[in-house]
Amino acid sequence: MRMGEGVEWALHTCLNLTWVEAGQAVPASRLAAYYELPAAYLNKQLQALARAGLVVSAPGPRGGFQLARPPERVTLMDVVAAIEGEEPAFRCTEIRGRGPAEGGPFPTACVIDRSMRAAELAWRRELASRTLADVKAEVEREAPDAPARFRNWLSRKGA
Amino acid sequence: MRMGEGVEWALHTCLNLTWVEAGQAVPASRLAAYYELPAAYLNKQLQALARAGLVVSAPGPRGGFQLARPPERVTLMDVVAAIEGEEPAFRCTEIRGRGPAEGGPFPTACVIDRSMRAAELAWRRELASRTLADVKAEVEREAPDAPARFRNWLSRKGA
Ligand code: FES
Ligand code: FES
Repeated sequence: MRMGEGVEWALHTCLNLTWVEAGQAVPASRLAAYYELPAAYLNKQLQALARAGLVVSAPGPRGGFQLARPPERVTLMDVVAAIEGEEPAFRCTEIRGRGPAEGGPFPTACVIDRSMRAAELAWRRELASRTLADVKAEVEREAPDAPARFRNWLSRKGA
Repeated sequence: MRMGEGVEWALHTCLNLTWVEAGQAVPASRLAAYYELPAAYLNKQLQALARAGLVVSAPGPRGGFQLARPPERVTLMDVVAAIEGEEPAFRCTEIRGRGPAEGGPFPTACVIDRSMRAAELAWRRELASRTLADVKAEVEREAPDAPARFRNWLSRKGA
């Protein structure tokens, strides 16, 4: 079971977008260049974030992407779900009802399915309990120059 | 992010193995037939369970698979890890240190990576907190005939 690397890209890109000035949009190519990522692939992640309502894209020569809402209102779960989808990782195919095992109809969901869901719920809860604002605050505590580095780089090459 | 369906098969197969008489080994083909699963593919899952030390295979005409230890000592995490591997679903590639973003070496693991790991840990903990014995007890409460159905089917066709 593995997530695509787009999750790491999307999370860091959203974090970087918390550091641009209000109202400023950043082109996908610039967001990609900051980490030397393939722009076309990062653009796909940005489109997925846009479909999920996490970023908005402004068209035109000064266009690009910006966060759609304050970082306090974006959780890590929102970003992961936008990129990886909302489907559970474990999907019960009701094998208990197949073949000679067949004993249905079953009044309750399978105990194994319920257990697997409970575990995914714990994972989801944990990701939903952390916002981009939390991550931003912690990164800024550990690397106080991170916001300025991103902003300086943007203005240097973007003028 | 998706688990293979082998996880469902392996979990139910381990559960079925809690219902056979002590010392009895069940061939992979019989375990597969109970759910009309492709035997070769289930056999792969059984080999993975054997490598993880969860089942043992007895050779010979009366051979087959049996649980390697009591169901109290097998957690859902053990089975999932045997099938899906121990690797985390989220793997940080240290993009924070790539390109013009480069600000390393970093004294601590990335905040985003830490957050993703914390969530997976919550998932792992939940799966590790449930044993095959727990699942068995709950299934037997909800479907008291489940053990007998499996045993009867085994003896009917296996004599
Ligand atoms: S029938 Fe799907 S997990 Fe039990
Ligand atoms: S550098 Fe990998 S998650 Fe931050």
